[in-house]
Amino acid sequence: MTAVTSVDARTGEVLTTVAQESTAEETAAACARAAAAFPGLEAMGRYGRAGLLRAMAGALEAARPEVVRVADRESALGEQRLQGELTRTCFQLRFFAEVLHEGSYVEATIDHAGPTPMGPRPDLRRMLVPLGPVGVFGASNFPLAFSVPGGDTASALAAGCPVVVKAHPSHPATSQLCFDLLAGAVRETRAPSGTVGIVHGGPAGMDLVTHPAIRAVGFTGSPRGGRALFDAAQARPEPIPFYAEMGSLNPLVVTPTAAGERAASIAEGYVASFTLGAGQFCTKPGLAFVPAGSPLRAELARRVGELGGTVLLNAAISDAFGEGVDRLTGRPGVEVVASGTGPLAPVLFAVRAAALSGPVLEECFGPAAVLVEYESEEELLGALASLPGSLTATVHAGEEESALPDRLATVLREKAGRLVWNAFPTGVAVSHAMHHGGPYPATTNALHTSVGATAIRRFLRPVTWQDAPAAVLPPELRDEDPGVPRRVNGVLDP
Amino acid sequence: MTAVTSVDARTGEVLTTVAQESTAEETAAACARAAAAFPGLEAMGRYGRAGLLRAMAGALEAARPEVVRVADRESALGEQRLQGELTRTCFQLRFFAEVLHEGSYVEATIDHAGPTPMGPRPDLRRMLVPLGPVGVFGASNFPLAFSVPGGDTASALAAGCPVVVKAHPSHPATSQLCFDLLAGAVRETRAPSGTVGIVHGGPAGMDLVTHPAIRAVGFTGSPRGGRALFDAAQARPEPIPFYAEMGSLNPLVVTPTAAGERAASIAEGYVASFTLGAGQFCTKPGLAFVPAGSPLRAELARRVGELGGTVLLNAAISDAFGEGVDRLTGRPGVEVVASGTGPLAPVLFAVRAAALSGPVLEECFGPAAVLVEYESEEELLGALASLPGSLTATVHAGEEESALPDRLATVLREKAGRLVWNAFPTGVAVSHAMHHGGPYPATTNALHTSVGATAIRRFLRPVTWQDAPAAVLPPELRDEDPGVPRRVNGVLDP
Repeated sequence: MTAVTSVDARTGEVLTTVAQESTAEETAAACARAAAAFPGLEAMGRYGRAGLLRAMAGALEAARPEVVRVADRESALGEQRLQGELTRTCFQLRFFAEVLHEGSYVEATIDHAGPTPMGPRPDLRRMLVPLGPVGVFGASNFPLAFSVPGGDTASALAAGCPVVVKAHPSHPATSQLCFDLLAGAVRETRAPSGTVGIVHGGPAGMDLVTHPAIRAVGFTGSPRGGRALFDAAQARPEPIPFYAEMGSLNPLVVTPTAAGERAASIAEGYVASFTLGAGQFCTKPGLAFVPAGSPLRAELARRVGELGGTVLLNAAISDAFGEGVDRLTGRPGVEVVASGTGPLAPVLFAVRAAALSGPVLEECFGPAAVLVEYESEEELLGALASLPGSLTATVHAGEEESALPDRLATVLREKAGRLVWNAFPTGVAVSHAMHHGGPYPATTNALHTSVGATAIRRFLRPVTWQDAPAAVLPPELRDEDPGVPRRVNGVLDP
Repeated sequence: MTAVTSVDARTGEVLTTVAQESTAEETAAACARAAAAFPGLEAMGRYGRAGLLRAMAGALEAARPEVVRVADRESALGEQRLQGELTRTCFQLRFFAEVLHEGSYVEATIDHAGPTPMGPRPDLRRMLVPLGPVGVFGASNFPLAFSVPGGDTASALAAGCPVVVKAHPSHPATSQLCFDLLAGAVRETRAPSGTVGIVHGGPAGMDLVTHPAIRAVGFTGSPRGGRALFDAAQARPEPIPFYAEMGSLNPLVVTPTAAGERAASIAEGYVASFTLGAGQFCTKPGLAFVPAGSPLRAELARRVGELGGTVLLNAAISDAFGEGVDRLTGRPGVEVVASGTGPLAPVLFAVRAAALSGPVLEECFGPAAVLVEYESEEELLGALASLPGSLTATVHAGEEESALPDRLATVLREKAGRLVWNAFPTGVAVSHAMHHGGPYPATTNALHTSVGATAIRRFLRPVTWQDAPAAVLPPELRDEDPGVPRRVNGVLDP
């Protein structure tokens, strides 16, 4: 048995033993409980599950001081950030309750029987139904909003899928506390007891992904871990969708005009963005393309030089950050532009766009960023075209400028899932129009998002009923007022 | 060099050499042309691509006699069936033109800037954009509707994705003729020349799936071939979605009440359905669950006994059918209920539900079916729960019956993508509410369909523009009347 312990992120002190690592049998049992809960969770209906999500938000709110205290001790992210993250987490649960009420996510579609050029058509009724039990991997960097009570859990439960969460080892006490609060809401709303489950420890991850009852997985983490689990999910006798968000360079481009117009404000915003949460955001803009010789460099250097040290999420991340900084520092063609003072202080590097390659193109998780200095538009566009996929790409353009921004918009759309203009990509609103995903390796599947209303689509599959009696149809497909927008004979009629 | 020849399916005579097997360089060149065509195809816009699809339908219609003649010679499917299949193929191209005009498939969504509980939200605008070049594998059993001019091609082009088709070796002349007609429509509508491409021969398949320019693949074929290509697509440095439809048992259940009420009409319909197209439909109802001792067995046996021989699509399929029949014939517990007269004649087997296992659970492509005789409802439901995933599942229930049909509806929804009531699953309407997909191994990805309006979703990915100037936004996301239904600040307003 290996103990799972809660560690103070600031001091390294072992605080408590939260659990033992889940054995293969324990993980299998959690998956079996989830499978047993599936029919009952779906049978609660959209309004019933909305009530469950709201009860979960209420339970988290009611325990706010304790949740923030425990999460801060395990993550060192600070009380203010964690207050905001808990607000976001509760908002997200309630947001999916609204998505359930509105109901267009089921894509209810009816084609009545009738003649066609290929002969008579039967009555066809299509909608999306839940996939079944879902595995969720908590993230190190968002102990609440992308962990036990986070977006993957909220969207899977909204879809009607029971969830088994693999707790992140960096914040097991936070995970267990949040799980207990969610489980309380499950009891309160009389949802099936296996609606949420939790497993701890490294081996439980692979056990979860390969368990036959699990029908899809949501993952936020590193490219290495994500790809290994993705490969296992695809190698199953029955492959399952594996939605991984794995890391991202998030290129940011400053045009020469923008650099001339507002170097100081861009520098201020950029440094704040790449050091937010000690640079541990998946949307950290890690590469900034700036015109060679622009005043931006000095503006950025001054601000970075004034910064102090940071505390990262855990020892492994601190070590990896140190190694990443060392690797860049010693590399020919890479300059250290500036660094802060103190342990794990922010660092700003610079390379020439023509020399963009190797470790500069790997995400360095933590408060580091790289200026990529370009000599010409062609060099800039060529360098951007060579980038791997990212979650976001950002353009800072001049007030009246249009030619270069247009070209950038075209090149960057193929490289990212969200295109940000004259702002910074950290901060991801939970809304209908948000997309948080992108071409590989930002995610394994560029078709889906892990934030926003459409995140629910990951856990649904279509079913069509042909000539079915009303009694076997879901309420959303019956003739009477369905309470959801529908498409009938091709016409959308909400 | 290996010649790709057109063979008369009825006589085995080699008619012509259509092409040489594509070399790796030729396949790479076709992919590169597709990549070069991508921006131009998207820039045609929804109306421009609708015009392209209509021109393709027109070109196929104009060559109808020749297309049907060539396809019949290579497939032996018969003129009537191929006339119908061509009508369906043209309808499908025009149907996607309508999907483009209506435009809700882009899921245009706008959240205006404003305050939220987490602070101010920027202006966010989301819609789906094309993935990039798509590989399509033609099917043996639908030389038109699921081959070069078929549903995968139509939906990918509608999405804005250039297509490279791997022609099926069973009908290379049909494939090349259809390709030439599509390429003519590309020229006529001034679409980019690489909008459609074609490759021939076995090695081209793997070359296509592993080419870096290819962003998704549509496949219709065998589980063995499909899984091998799926595995290769997932093992790429950047995995891509691989949408395979691979085979299906399509269970059909006759309740005791239905068997008592209308054994003769069910038997008539069932024999017609499992022998349609010589049993070479992916929706062939290959397993019929009937009450032990019902008059259905005699009704079915009589009809099957009256049937003559068939011609299958090619020698490999004929050989595999013969082997499949031999395997079942010699198996303990499997009875031969009846067979027709002549080469490759239809065969009906029977097994007891309690003995359902092994090769009985593997699709036997061609005019064979298996009666599964059940003694009780519990035995029936248990046997159904043990089935692999299928495209369809069918229930024949009594007029006033409800208890057993309700239970069947619940069990079968987890096993299939389309649930058919009191009818037969062969025949797949092209419409908005159709779903043609299902749990593995029916498809590799139960989330998507290869028939119907939503097939386009396979080839699209979301992008969100944040605070973007109107000039870089797609027309569908600009403030002025977009011509498509949109969701604005959460409210659907078509």
